[in-house]
Amino acid sequence: MNMVGIITKKKLGQALDREEIDFFVEGAAKQTVPDYQLAAMLMAIRLNGMTAQETTHLALAMRDSGDVADLSAIPGIKVDKHSTGGVGDTATLVLAPLVAACGVPVAKMSGRGLGHTGGTLDKLESIPGFQIGLSEEDFVRQVNEIGVAVIGQTGSLAPADKTLYALRDVTATVDSLPLIASSIMSKKLASGADAIVLDVKTGSGAIMQTLEGSIELAKAMVDIGTLAGKPVSGIVTGMSQPLGTHVGNALEVKDAIDVLSGRTKGDLLEVSLLLGSHMLMLAGAARSEEEARGKLTAALDSGAGLEKLRQMIAAQHGDPAVCDDWTLMPQAAVIREVKCGQAGWVASMDTTALGLAAQAMGAGRIRKTDPLDYSVGFILPVRIGDRVEADTPFCTLFARNEIEADAAEAAVRRAVTIGDAPVERPPLWYAIVTKDGIRKACIIASDGAGGLFPDRTDMQSKNTL
Amino acid sequence: MNMVGIITKKKLGQALDREEIDFFVEGAAKQTVPDYQLAAMLMAIRLNGMTAQETTHLALAMRDSGDVADLSAIPGIKVDKHSTGGVGDTATLVLAPLVAACGVPVAKMSGRGLGHTGGTLDKLESIPGFQIGLSEEDFVRQVNEIGVAVIGQTGSLAPADKTLYALRDVTATVDSLPLIASSIMSKKLASGADAIVLDVKTGSGAIMQTLEGSIELAKAMVDIGTLAGKPVSGIVTGMSQPLGTHVGNALEVKDAIDVLSGRTKGDLLEVSLLLGSHMLMLAGAARSEEEARGKLTAALDSGAGLEKLRQMIAAQHGDPAVCDDWTLMPQAAVIREVKCGQAGWVASMDTTALGLAAQAMGAGRIRKTDPLDYSVGFILPVRIGDRVEADTPFCTLFARNEIEADAAEAAVRRAVTIGDAPVERPPLWYAIVTKDGIRKACIIASDGAGGLFPDRTDMQSKNTL
Repeated sequence: MNMVGIITKKKLGQALDREEIDFFVEGAAKQTVPDYQLAAMLMAIRLNGMTAQETTHLALAMRDSGDVADLSAIPGIKVDKHSTGGVGDTATLVLAPLVAACGVPVAKMSGRGLGHTGGTLDKLESIPGFQIGLSEEDFVRQVNEIGVAVIGQTGSLAPADKTLYALRDVTATVDSLPLIASSIMSKKLASGADAIVLDVKTGSGAIMQTLEGSIELAKAMVDIGTLAGKPVSGIVTGMSQPLGTHVGNALEVKDAIDVLSGRTKGDLLEVSLLLGSHMLMLAGAARSEEEARGKLTAALDSGAGLEKLRQMIAAQHGDPAVCDDWTLMPQAAVIREVKCGQAGWVASMDTTALGLAAQAMGAGRIRKTDPLDYSVGFILPVRIGDRVEADTPFCTLFARNEIEADAAEAAVRRAVTIGDAPVERPPLWYAIVTKDGIRKACIIASDGAGGLFPDRTDMQSKNTL
Repeated sequence: MNMVGIITKKKLGQALDREEIDFFVEGAAKQTVPDYQLAAMLMAIRLNGMTAQETTHLALAMRDSGDVADLSAIPGIKVDKHSTGGVGDTATLVLAPLVAACGVPVAKMSGRGLGHTGGTLDKLESIPGFQIGLSEEDFVRQVNEIGVAVIGQTGSLAPADKTLYALRDVTATVDSLPLIASSIMSKKLASGADAIVLDVKTGSGAIMQTLEGSIELAKAMVDIGTLAGKPVSGIVTGMSQPLGTHVGNALEVKDAIDVLSGRTKGDLLEVSLLLGSHMLMLAGAARSEEEARGKLTAALDSGAGLEKLRQMIAAQHGDPAVCDDWTLMPQAAVIREVKCGQAGWVASMDTTALGLAAQAMGAGRIRKTDPLDYSVGFILPVRIGDRVEADTPFCTLFARNEIEADAAEAAVRRAVTIGDAPVERPPLWYAIVTKDGIRKACIIASDGAGGLFPDRTDMQSKNTL
């Protein structure tokens, strides 16, 4: 077996077999295949694609290139949740405690933010004292004791993916569906869960900006799970605006606490309930979305969800009092309230630009080693479809100084378009992909002339969230 | 300007502009762009192609990455000739002296053989004492004194091409038309000639095995020449069998001497006259193929061509007596004559396999540093279309020992198919590409049912060579 022959096959658009994929992935992990051959291979994959079978083999080979977490000491079906990355997406902090409060163990390994999307670990670390670096033993013990733990990766998970991901970043091969799907799934399969709920974002702030591409990505990852013997549900949710109204690390923790305490309703809660429902179903704790939603809502209403968050923060050495007094979290030097300044309807948002605005304020990293300012970000209470007047609150900026507040105010204004005509609210979710097929939301355009899915025979469900 | 952005453009199938191509070629020459980014770029070019304009910019950028030979001290129009590589292709040794004997200066930089095709420099070095390493001054002086010199590259010609060619070899991106065309033309343009005749091989032993691909390659290189302001003619000639009957270094020198001395007629002579005619025309020494062919034939018949070869060998410190006594050249230990063994018609040849058989005997290199045995190879007098009987001479092997002779005999037999039915002789040439258009040979299949060019409106000339 030689690498030039394997590259040649993919260059000619042929499918690689398991041994060929193993050879090149092992070469990536052990650095026995030079970077230039890996780069040529990645570009050939980007341009010629991979079959579902190849994509699965790639994910499994990358999983097997390193450690695979062993969570067998935790009784029950462990369900993981992963988001492809969004702005103001703090669903993990809402649903992990809620699902755990329903008796389903949540043993989750999370990542850091890079680029315009935030990372769960960074948000958790904005809580004074919070530790994300648990050993596998402590991780298992915590989940067995309180039902939930969210930590950074332990051991060396999927080192081949690390090598290939770093190369993709510098060879313009990030935007490849099989490479994205296998990269995500290699880490998820290595992190030891029994089942996985994937939140695949679509829209202006998502890795896949088109609905078609997002559904394809969800399907590719569900296929990998199915072929790997692990149930996976892929929920395609909207990212044409930030999910929560808060963007920034400490601010997103506040958003999650507000939701869990019942003070805030809205999209973040609804998407968390949807994803959480599928976690309960995959764990066997509910037979239908309705039943699961009922359990999660009860845990929310009783305060059990918020209590679970308090327990998790305490167990991981953070200060649980932040759940009751947010001023214990890092606070920004400058807080500025901004009005809409014009009347109309919120027409659209450039969600990536909103993420980059928060990044520029200090909430995100440009390089992996950049330090974060947990206190900064903004609250953007307006949503697409809202009627606003000139004096409607537009956003609240949390900045390090007046100059950065000025820059952020301009960036947020540029990213949000206010128009003259009413606009339909975007759906919260578009499709649910499982091994049994694709269930699409029924979306009717505001002019009644058609929907996002002209092929109405596909539609089996009306989006009623 | 950054490399990821440039790769992204090509990945998306967009045309690169001059500055972008300059950036990446300069990066290749100076090693400021890492190999993995060059490799991703090469694969994107291989899969998404390049426009004629891009291919030209690439050739010019690679030319300008190093020295450009200055031949202005040689009066007259200097015409270079280049072959894309074939088996038994010793046309340079026939036509360089003939063209020089017609008064047109031939200042040629040649290459070594690699893979299954031989190199002119290796053949010349099989002549005892012959030196290919002249300084640019000595090169110019020799051409001014005797009208002809064939040497290795002087200075550092097209170093970016060296880097990219080495990478292509290990990333499965050799077979890219714009990369092949720009690589050849960068070196030809750097070697200082005023005009270039390209011999683009087609068939089982050629880099482009299909006629369509070979014509496209010729057109791409003619386009580069035109856009670079240098007249280029591209002649697509057959490589479905070795050009000459002799394969091997000293053997091919013998073949050339036999042709120049008038003892041997056939395809090697005819292709040399065709290519030489176009060299005379580009140099302004003839106005038509007929006139040029007449001058070349006269130089052949008078012995002026062979005399020019003698002068060149002597000027480059070789022994010119080899032109009269071939036994002064390296001689093989084992010489074996093989009969056809069966009656029939020579139906086809795997020309690449024939080249590899000679390579295995020691006539070619597997690695760049391999030493050659100049004496080995074979004479294969049979041609496709020949009627043969069981006792017709099939080939004469020149080997280092009996074991290698056995292996070569088996390999040559496998590579030549003898069938039961008459077979049409393959044409010597298929198309002549100049800046004015493509002139195709009129080829009529033996069954009269159609030709290689079903679109008969293209045909303007009958192949009468």
